[in-house]
Amino acid sequence: MNDTPRAAALARLAAHQRRFDDRFAAYFDALAADVGAPPVSRFTPRALELLRALSLRGGKRLRVALLHEGAGLVTADDDVPGLAEAALSIELLQTHGLVHDDIIDDAPVRRGGPSTYYAYRGEFPAHERTALGLALLAGDLAAFLSVRVLLDAPVPAELRQALTDVQTRAAADTVVGQVMDLERDFLPRPDAGLLDTVTDYKSTRYSVLAPLRMGLLVAGGDLAAHDERLRRYAAPVGVLGQLRDDYLDLFGDEEVVGKPVGSDLRAGRRGYVLSAILAAATGPEREAVERALGDPDCPAAAVDRVRDIARRHGVDDRVRAELRRLAGTASAEAASWRSRWRAEAVDFFEHLPFWAAERAL
Amino acid sequence: MNDTPRAAALARLAAHQRRFDDRFAAYFDALAADVGAPPVSRFTPRALELLRALSLRGGKRLRVALLHEGAGLVTADDDVPGLAEAALSIELLQTHGLVHDDIIDDAPVRRGGPSTYYAYRGEFPAHERTALGLALLAGDLAAFLSVRVLLDAPVPAELRQALTDVQTRAAADTVVGQVMDLERDFLPRPDAGLLDTVTDYKSTRYSVLAPLRMGLLVAGGDLAAHDERLRRYAAPVGVLGQLRDDYLDLFGDEEVVGKPVGSDLRAGRRGYVLSAILAAATGPEREAVERALGDPDCPAAAVDRVRDIARRHGVDDRVRAELRRLAGTASAEAASWRSRWRAEAVDFFEHLPFWAAERAL
Repeated sequence: MNDTPRAAALARLAAHQRRFDDRFAAYFDALAADVGAPPVSRFTPRALELLRALSLRGGKRLRVALLHEGAGLVTADDDVPGLAEAALSIELLQTHGLVHDDIIDDAPVRRGGPSTYYAYRGEFPAHERTALGLALLAGDLAAFLSVRVLLDAPVPAELRQALTDVQTRAAADTVVGQVMDLERDFLPRPDAGLLDTVTDYKSTRYSVLAPLRMGLLVAGGDLAAHDERLRRYAAPVGVLGQLRDDYLDLFGDEEVVGKPVGSDLRAGRRGYVLSAILAAATGPEREAVERALGDPDCPAAAVDRVRDIARRHGVDDRVRAELRRLAGTASAEAASWRSRWRAEAVDFFEHLPFWAAERAL
Repeated sequence: MNDTPRAAALARLAAHQRRFDDRFAAYFDALAADVGAPPVSRFTPRALELLRALSLRGGKRLRVALLHEGAGLVTADDDVPGLAEAALSIELLQTHGLVHDDIIDDAPVRRGGPSTYYAYRGEFPAHERTALGLALLAGDLAAFLSVRVLLDAPVPAELRQALTDVQTRAAADTVVGQVMDLERDFLPRPDAGLLDTVTDYKSTRYSVLAPLRMGLLVAGGDLAAHDERLRRYAAPVGVLGQLRDDYLDLFGDEEVVGKPVGSDLRAGRRGYVLSAILAAATGPEREAVERALGDPDCPAAAVDRVRDIARRHGVDDRVRAELRRLAGTASAEAASWRSRWRAEAVDFFEHLPFWAAERAL
């Protein structure tokens, strides 16, 4: 790989993001009409406003890029019918997941702004249950909208059905993954196999595999013939994304991550990084980690201590090495597609794992 | 109407319920395979078990009957392909709504058993947030399953699409209705028009109209030509159902209702009955009602006092009269279908509003 395909692929990533962000804003502009709430309701437009605000703080939109480039494997047409609706569905499902996640984790901040739950808590300081209810319902609405938007795709009914099938299966898998994520936190020291399984369900399937599958489907590709290839690419990219998030949560910069450093530690989430620290630390170090883990009021100094312990045991270096290894594995899988699929998209898939990892490298 | 069609219609209602309950149990038997959670997870089967337990405590299944008889308007075949899947979808959406409602209302009891939320609270007494998270996720899973089950319907893709469209639109409307339901409780005295609008969104559309529409669609009926008729029937039946629930919550028998009497009062829900009491009572009576409203610890004696005040102002009699009037209106609409549609189903629709009201009459 030289610099020219990399620059071209980066330009494509930026173009996907720009175009999608415009479309997503236009979707929300038109949404009030689709939802059709009666004019007497002021709470409904507020819910749509909060969903919009969270949705439009969406960063690089890697999922949307995966979708478009999945189609790009077999077609040069970047406006294949159905692609726009699939992208909206993917990001609405993501919004649904974030809104509900932040209720589950009692998280005040998301994507550099207030979580939907805490936005409502601010608006209903004396009615905690109302705030919880409205956030829960906003998340439910995003879930149903993520299905509804697919039903409007201007494609044959069989294709709409296939897209809805992929997307709702991924949605159900994600819920199972989130259930397992909560289950994991009751295990003293979850092993790597379990962590990878949780990541597969809770993240890879809806974030990587479903966008690739929908892209290929929309472009008329043969999903059954190539699903194994997509899975071989999705698996390391999914783990990489989760490992990067876990890494940044402890070692990252709050402004880049969009939420306070140490959130996972305070919430008691035994993900990749914290499991690795628990496996490495012993004696008083181990006790310090266990004390901080799951303590919502754990002070910044205690988070710093855990970070120091992690560094002393080389956890940060090992995670970065693993991120590089995973990016290499995914990139090599993409490279093997070169004889089969369009070069431009293959280039893109070769580079994407490194961008996904880069904030942590 | 004489007794013979009534007995026949009642027998049909019982047969719909029996057959559906068997199917629903079989659906849950097969569900673990469809959800496909990895065997390491113990929390996932537990979530499915709780969804099953709540789902199978389902009473008369009026929604399922509305669906089957909606098809019965145009066909004598009670096993039209797609009917079984539509029924499962309707009741899974209902389960989703109940699970999330009981989180929003902090309700311990549902359908005579523990709410999913409180079942989890009992299992995780020291981890309130985990209990909330698992209940929320169980509800999310039911929502996605309610869509997924339609995708398996053995019917042409266009019909599957039409069913999914009706059902997800009803689901989104229901969320809007629940948002408005919370909004209503901030109004000092909601008027009848607003209450009817809330009922339409939060209840009628998914509970009455969507089953009728899906029944007609599955049987090959012309929905566009008849939708106004279905709406004219659905509107009074929907209000009747909500009014009956509001009535039973204050005047009913705990064992019949399946949750403690006075729940709406304690939760501060300004529905039909409590709004009528607020409109009628003045002075110390009004103060007594306002004091009890929204007090989760309101003692049984205070609930009794509110009930006495309601009776003194004739609220109970007026509600019962209104239930009779609504049943009559719906029944008359059904009677007007006699020249157009199958007599057996028309009989059924003539009787159903009275059964729906009867526990309150």
